Amino acid sequence: MFSLGHFLTLSSFGESHGTAYGGIISNFPAGIKLNLDLVQVALDRRKPGQSHITTARKEEDQVEFLSGIYEGKSTGAPISFIVKNKDTRSSDYKNIETNFRPSHADYTYEKKFGIRDPRGGGRSSARETLNWVVAGALAKHILPENLAIYSYVSQVGDIIMPSMPDINDDFYLKIESSPVRCPDAMISKKMEDLIQEVKIEGDSLGGVVETQIKHVPIGLGEPVFGKLHAALGHAMLSINACHGFEFGSGFAAASMRGSEHNDEFREDFSTRTNFSGGIQGGISNGMDIYFRVAFKPVASISKVQNFVNKEGVLSPNGIVGRHDPCVVPRAVPIVEHLAAFILADFYLINKIRK
Amino acid sequence: MFSLGHFLTLSSFGESHGTAYGGIISNFPAGIKLNLDLVQVALDRRKPGQSHITTARKEEDQVEFLSGIYEGKSTGAPISFIVKNKDTRSSDYKNIETNFRPSHADYTYEKKFGIRDPRGGGRSSARETLNWVVAGALAKHILPENLAIYSYVSQVGDIIMPSMPDINDDFYLKIESSPVRCPDAMISKKMEDLIQEVKIEGDSLGGVVETQIKHVPIGLGEPVFGKLHAALGHAMLSINACHGFEFGSGFAAASMRGSEHNDEFREDFSTRTNFSGGIQGGISNGMDIYFRVAFKPVASISKVQNFVNKEGVLSPNGIVGRHDPCVVPRAVPIVEHLAAFILADFYLINKIRK
Amino acid sequence: MFSLGHFLTLSSFGESHGTAYGGIISNFPAGIKLNLDLVQVALDRRKPGQSHITTARKEEDQVEFLSGIYEGKSTGAPISFIVKNKDTRSSDYKNIETNFRPSHADYTYEKKFGIRDPRGGGRSSARETLNWVVAGALAKHILPENLAIYSYVSQVGDIIMPSMPDINDDFYLKIESSPVRCPDAMISKKMEDLIQEVKIEGDSLGGVVETQIKHVPIGLGEPVFGKLHAALGHAMLSINACHGFEFGSGFAAASMRGSEHNDEFREDFSTRTNFSGGIQGGISNGMDIYFRVAFKPVASISKVQNFVNKEGVLSPNGIVGRHDPCVVPRAVPIVEHLAAFILADFYLINKIRK
Amino acid sequence: MFSLGHFLTLSSFGESHGTAYGGIISNFPAGIKLNLDLVQVALDRRKPGQSHITTARKEEDQVEFLSGIYEGKSTGAPISFIVKNKDTRSSDYKNIETNFRPSHADYTYEKKFGIRDPRGGGRSSARETLNWVVAGALAKHILPENLAIYSYVSQVGDIIMPSMPDINDDFYLKIESSPVRCPDAMISKKMEDLIQEVKIEGDSLGGVVETQIKHVPIGLGEPVFGKLHAALGHAMLSINACHGFEFGSGFAAASMRGSEHNDEFREDFSTRTNFSGGIQGGISNGMDIYFRVAFKPVASISKVQNFVNKEGVLSPNGIVGRHDPCVVPRAVPIVEHLAAFILADFYLINKIRK
Repeated sequence: MFSLGHFLTLSSFGESHGTAYGGIISNFPAGIKLNLDLVQVALDRRKPGQSHITTARKEEDQVEFLSGIYEGKSTGAPISFIVKNKDTRSSDYKNIETNFRPSHADYTYEKKFGIRDPRGGGRSSARETLNWVVAGALAKHILPENLAIYSYVSQVGDIIMPSMPDINDDFYLKIESSPVRCPDAMISKKMEDLIQEVKIEGDSLGGVVETQIKHVPIGLGEPVFGKLHAALGHAMLSINACHGFEFGSGFAAASMRGSEHNDEFREDFSTRTNFSGGIQGGISNGMDIYFRVAFKPVASISKVQNFVNKEGVLSPNGIVGRHDPCVVPRAVPIVEHLAAFILADFYLINKIRK
Repeated sequence: MFSLGHFLTLSSFGESHGTAYGGIISNFPAGIKLNLDLVQVALDRRKPGQSHITTARKEEDQVEFLSGIYEGKSTGAPISFIVKNKDTRSSDYKNIETNFRPSHADYTYEKKFGIRDPRGGGRSSARETLNWVVAGALAKHILPENLAIYSYVSQVGDIIMPSMPDINDDFYLKIESSPVRCPDAMISKKMEDLIQEVKIEGDSLGGVVETQIKHVPIGLGEPVFGKLHAALGHAMLSINACHGFEFGSGFAAASMRGSEHNDEFREDFSTRTNFSGGIQGGISNGMDIYFRVAFKPVASISKVQNFVNKEGVLSPNGIVGRHDPCVVPRAVPIVEHLAAFILADFYLINKIRK
Repeated sequence: MFSLGHFLTLSSFGESHGTAYGGIISNFPAGIKLNLDLVQVALDRRKPGQSHITTARKEEDQVEFLSGIYEGKSTGAPISFIVKNKDTRSSDYKNIETNFRPSHADYTYEKKFGIRDPRGGGRSSARETLNWVVAGALAKHILPENLAIYSYVSQVGDIIMPSMPDINDDFYLKIESSPVRCPDAMISKKMEDLIQEVKIEGDSLGGVVETQIKHVPIGLGEPVFGKLHAALGHAMLSINACHGFEFGSGFAAASMRGSEHNDEFREDFSTRTNFSGGIQGGISNGMDIYFRVAFKPVASISKVQNFVNKEGVLSPNGIVGRHDPCVVPRAVPIVEHLAAFILADFYLINKIRK
Repeated sequence: MFSLGHFLTLSSFGESHGTAYGGIISNFPAGIKLNLDLVQVALDRRKPGQSHITTARKEEDQVEFLSGIYEGKSTGAPISFIVKNKDTRSSDYKNIETNFRPSHADYTYEKKFGIRDPRGGGRSSARETLNWVVAGALAKHILPENLAIYSYVSQVGDIIMPSMPDINDDFYLKIESSPVRCPDAMISKKMEDLIQEVKIEGDSLGGVVETQIKHVPIGLGEPVFGKLHAALGHAMLSINACHGFEFGSGFAAASMRGSEHNDEFREDFSTRTNFSGGIQGGISNGMDIYFRVAFKPVASISKVQNFVNKEGVLSPNGIVGRHDPCVVPRAVPIVEHLAAFILADFYLINKIRK
């Protein structure tokens, strides 16, 4: 009921300081040769501690596959995996056992369930996203080989890329060689500096992850309640700290005229402009898909703020755990792999459609 | 598989010029007294032709209930309904049978399914949204009586409400007495004038619908893939012409600091600020929920643009049907009732949770 | 959640004396030419009043299609239909409004929902099965043309066909020319006589419907929780009055030895025996599928028995409505079309599998 | 899509000789104190090697919980578990890598997926059922404490319990103290002797597991496609080697009259007879539920029979692995725990219904 995907699905589990994360991917096609090293590489891109501007935690997240694969190929059986939790200093989280932190899920989980695992946020922790990266990295094996998903940071705080960059041959390298995963080296440097500054202040920063997808097959997505952009939006809004999603022209479309916004066809059915962001009526039209995901500044800051305990007593606190001042760079592989999973789901469903 | 809701679900059907629209609402609780007049009133708010600035089509959409209701009360059986199509001048749509209109779903439906009902957009028509209004109007009967959903137009083209308005006693009246459903009379007038101007040009306008929800029970929404804001986002992105969704601080959060964005608790567990938009970790915290939905300018304009036929031959065309120059005012009841349905779904699920 | 099928799904609605029955079939493939007359013919086979041994009610059930079909072909959009209720003498059912009939669903519905539509059994009426016949008749359009489903009555009361009959060219004619739908003319006559006898007594009879399916593609069905026979069993057990399901060797397998029961392969991968009933590990193996569905005698009898009212007071009653003394002949097209729907669902899913 | 349950769901994975089995239980209510020892005890009841008449394999199946539990209580988060595979002599299964065994799933899996894990049957192995026992043992924590499920062997080969036994205080002990899990000591001995005899012959035996459920709340089960007996039937038919399911009067109902079969009410709404098996219209009526599950003799026998290879060449083989001559005694805890899971699912859903 609460899983990712329609036909290709991910059911997942795990808490920040529990035994393990993991998931089951159902309806993965049979007979596909899997490069499991690539899955680990994807997971490594998500981990913290990759540069001086991210958290000092070292999560050496190793994915282990438990089923669904035989002699390197998918068998059509559910593919399951786990990632064991290692670096868990539960003592760091002692005072949140009795306190609710502002803008965290402590209070809402407690009120909803009447119980919560307080260690590191429990089920509400962003560590859950490692399940999604594993699932997305597997899903990429289903997609056409030339389909390429480029996610990158386009905004950190008030530092914003002025326009959507063109994708060129070494674009992926540009992203990954930037500590903030911004492909524009100049802007990347500014973002780094800002994050460093804010880190010293014990504060945090929001930002935007932009994504461009090339070589999308025509016809992905379903009418009405299975629209491709709605499924992408749902997935992205499921990422911790996400506060907004727009595709194609996005919010800017609100101030445009139809005569300006309509994407006129060329004789080869491509369009002259692409304000539609590659999706019309919820279905891909073969043009590039692009969308933007907005993240709030993470709530975990060391600056002192009021917590509240179950009795409603306020007390000033700084969060002492090791936390990223800006999670947006680490959100990049999450966005990229969620997109891959969503596309693969519709790609499979499309096999029935004709 | 492609329906609305998780436990309380709407399965729907219909094409613009088919026999009827309709739907089945499953798992509606038993024994609830239903005010079916209110459902029709809700539907009337959605119809075109309500003012001089909307389309001249008269769709006298009458909802008929076929099952699930006995002596005015829900029985726990599926509630089904139909809305017959009436005012269908198929001849208006002749030249789109062989042509693909720019930024419509003509081309993608044709490529995906190999066939399409070309009359009025067929399944891709926004007339589908009348099903959602009926479902949402029924869903309101499940929600707590004091829960109130206020949707209104906050932007049309470049005319924007400067800040989120406070809700007062006659706020709903203010919305409905404005032809564009903007509660600020001065701004409403400007929006009207702009729409009138653009209508004469044969062009169209985008805009934004903003929503505030009061008296939300704590605990609605589910962890990870059932987050309340993700479900709302998915629903809103399913509305025709929608290009973006943000809740709480939204995209503005990207330029904020954590120390500024964190919503500090008061001793009664309410928060001093509400950048979270009433949702933390995907679960309602009892504060007001608010979100914004961006709409592109509708693609149907009478201004001449190139269509393309199946052979790739371009031909200049103006769309001659009767179309709204700005659909955003009519989107207001759609947004409002979709939100009601999503909330009611989680409200029911929560009964199991505890 | 409570619908038929996994990918190809039927959501349905309706009460015995409500406005209409109907359903939505989702994910029906696009571009399939539909013979809607055949759907009506199928529905006519289900209706009561076809012979002197069935109920005198005349339900002239006419199916109307509301969506998903354009110029005689499926469009890939949801196919919806309704069948209006006509011959509803509500007064016949007056005394069951306040009384619970033995072995009906009156009491359980009342206790579960706290309310019920008492007219003709409301949602629990077997009239719901007309939705399934419509859905199955459409589903047949998806299946390979040579796939043939033969359902027939193999037992009425203690009159039992001695062995599973061979299918020959005019087998279908034999079934339909028998008033009890038993292909063996001699046994059919005995069944008729027994039903006539029991009818006069104001009593009712149980029976068994047997089904053989020829030319089944290999590979239908899914491992573990999507087994073909389990899906068939679930569907059949959903038919009113059904009390048992067995496939292949069925309950007789319990007294067999493995060396006797194992179906040895031939060199063409067909098997010498077919105790497996064409299904191994939940997946069709290309041999004939066969299964049996047991029905209890219908609970509605005119013989006097005790009803109980809501206060627990007993009162002797005979059910005065017009009811079949033996529903098993009318169950034949229901079983046949349910089977078609289940097979079509797995047939579509299989397209993704490879 | 292919999981167990509607709201409370089990998604599972695992192959006979893979790394591990396991599953995710979703929507388990929060705050329930869990006795995990009882889960292991349940699992131990399922394992082979418990007596001289079962297989000599020693599967020391240890369940490990990975998530969803904090300080001994459920948190509302997905509960996941794994059971590692240990005693896997892959060499035993060498010749089935290239051969299809009769009446196994080797051939159908190969044809469906184009690939299979041949070791021990891979995904089609009955080891999957250990996942179900774990899930059912957890589900029991949700059910009312006095609800009691008694499953036992009522038939092995042609040795049959003459009538359904009454449940008394030490009934559970009687079941578990019998090596074949038949509560009648005399018949149990006969069954044992028969199994021993057949074991020596290298052959196998079928049988029947009967279940009685006491103290069932009224109202479990849903109309039409969520009927309690249909969900039970679907679950039971998912067990390896199951060939039939009947509840209440079952197949015997086919030869009964309505006047005999109808269960007349008493003044306290209990019924004088219980041919309905505690379920009317798919919904529990508070009377005892009872049903029977038929199992074929297992296909793995050491007696020589023809296998076939991928080229269609036949070769005489005896299966040399260690296999139960009769799996029915081990099916008892599987049936019992599947039933618990199904009941718990409907029990949770019912919380919304009123």
